[in-house]
Amino acid sequence: MTDAQDTSGEDSLIARYFRPLATDPGALGLVDDAAILRSAGDDIVVTTDAVVEGVHYLASDPPDTIARKALRVNLSDLAAKGASPAGFVLTLALRAKEDAWLRPFADALGEDANAFACPLLGGDTVSTPGPQMISITAFGRVPQGRMVGRTGARPGDRILVTGTIGDAALGLDVLTDGAAAKALASDPHARDMLVSRYRIPQPRSVLAQAVRDHATAAMDVSDGLAGDLAKLCAASGVSATVEVASMPFSAPAAGLVARDAVCVETLLAGGDDYEVLCTVPPAQSDALIAAGRAAGLAVTVIGTVVEGSGRPRFVDGQGRELVLKRLSYSHF
Amino acid sequence: MTDAQDTSGEDSLIARYFRPLATDPGALGLVDDAAILRSAGDDIVVTTDAVVEGVHYLASDPPDTIARKALRVNLSDLAAKGASPAGFVLTLALRAKEDAWLRPFADALGEDANAFACPLLGGDTVSTPGPQMISITAFGRVPQGRMVGRTGARPGDRILVTGTIGDAALGLDVLTDGAAAKALASDPHARDMLVSRYRIPQPRSVLAQAVRDHATAAMDVSDGLAGDLAKLCAASGVSATVEVASMPFSAPAAGLVARDAVCVETLLAGGDDYEVLCTVPPAQSDALIAAGRAAGLAVTVIGTVVEGSGRPRFVDGQGRELVLKRLSYSHF
Repeated sequence: MTDAQDTSGEDSLIARYFRPLATDPGALGLVDDAAILRSAGDDIVVTTDAVVEGVHYLASDPPDTIARKALRVNLSDLAAKGASPAGFVLTLALRAKEDAWLRPFADALGEDANAFACPLLGGDTVSTPGPQMISITAFGRVPQGRMVGRTGARPGDRILVTGTIGDAALGLDVLTDGAAAKALASDPHARDMLVSRYRIPQPRSVLAQAVRDHATAAMDVSDGLAGDLAKLCAASGVSATVEVASMPFSAPAAGLVARDAVCVETLLAGGDDYEVLCTVPPAQSDALIAAGRAAGLAVTVIGTVVEGSGRPRFVDGQGRELVLKRLSYSHF
Repeated sequence: MTDAQDTSGEDSLIARYFRPLATDPGALGLVDDAAILRSAGDDIVVTTDAVVEGVHYLASDPPDTIARKALRVNLSDLAAKGASPAGFVLTLALRAKEDAWLRPFADALGEDANAFACPLLGGDTVSTPGPQMISITAFGRVPQGRMVGRTGARPGDRILVTGTIGDAALGLDVLTDGAAAKALASDPHARDMLVSRYRIPQPRSVLAQAVRDHATAAMDVSDGLAGDLAKLCAASGVSATVEVASMPFSAPAAGLVARDAVCVETLLAGGDDYEVLCTVPPAQSDALIAAGRAAGLAVTVIGTVVEGSGRPRFVDGQGRELVLKRLSYSHF
């Protein structure tokens, strides 16, 4: 314990909880205001995503899942850009310094930083009288010029998505006693699965290289598949046709729709999926699906990129268009 | 206006206010979740600092000064590390989307981004029911291995500081109707100067290269000179002796101390100075002072690095030690 640590509760908080996570030499043991990111001519991909108590997570969520979510929403962005994680900086706005909250938060953050090879490089800890907030800026690396953007989708490309869509939105519905909670009252296993999908995103880092090798455009689905696909199409100057019957829904999600307990819009426009949405030339879609299979991850063709500038069309098994009232979550 | 912008208030907010600031090609026009930071073998210096309404700025502060402060506290870090600005990402936690607040905020942020050659690369905008918060992660460049850390101060090094110390703490005191406000009731010019020092830090970017060329250790003074010097000394494994009589105080600050309206501790332990504090071998202190003079910036020798591990000693003109009850601002 040095004098300097005596002088500031913030320093002692950093030393106690976060220094053990700063394993990268560029973090300088968190004794500096700044960190160093070495680069050998590759591009550094930068992404930043914040989570706010009561908005992105619930005050009642366990601190370990909040930590994982805060980091993973950024790792999900990096994976969708075809980048390998290189590190992150953390801004923590806390109401109080409570060991009972900070200890599991820091431990889980450290576990995830290790598991995804994304070390803590630095950060800032500030007090707030309001809701807690965790803002993370994460860095990844790609060979020069190889980041997968949003603008490269071309008519004829297949639209693929990883994992399943809509589970996280249903998980939030369960936690907030919505329609899904009532419909699944007697199915704790399904409720737990959906809640876990809301609380702990699964960044598709294992697919980053395959996305870089095959996708013409990609992004992660964070605000709702329908709205996110509309953004990708707009950025690429194209439109899309999506077959709702092909959409990968989990068994509980499909069951809730089949029973009319929730409408399909809840799944397509719900947020927090953190799956990779990408467009791939037809000849390469099998390669991406195979890369997913090798990693134990479902990758599903859900539609096709078409010419035009209209919103993506969602059609059912009979070719009828499904008109969505809401495409995605918006903060404003 | 594209379809995608129709789908989300957040996207429209970004397009309207922040896209004009994203002039760097790596920002990808803010249509992506990620940005690209090119590197040609130099080191990327990363720093992150957040400002919270009611903690780092007052709810009544003008939005343009809030924007400038949020960016400048980060630019100040980069300057003290000897780094040239390369860009920044912005996380904005807002209660509501109000043009009257966002327009001057974004305009001022854009002006500063231009003035300091530090373009907006990306960001995240989230809603919060609590105090607004602006978190910025800024990037700078230094030649490989040349970032100026905190650990290199050696006994015998001179301790130098830029500008004046304590004005910002007095400015906050003026804004919150403290002792300085009363003592300066009839001196609006002094009050305005101090308030401006609190609201609009002056990053010492012009001195970055000289700091890199001459300093053995450096940091910016953000939480109070006494506490920040203690941190630098602890990181370097040294102690220091500071001559309070040499300390650069502005005329209003010196006048308030002379009249006993505020005590010198308020100046030495007050936060928000955003000056560069550095240690320099004796033979090179003149070169750093000259570099400052060439840029119109006072650089003052305030003391000497000495062996030991105790807290820095602050001594008056008679060599008597001044015992500070408080060294710096702490959030916790």
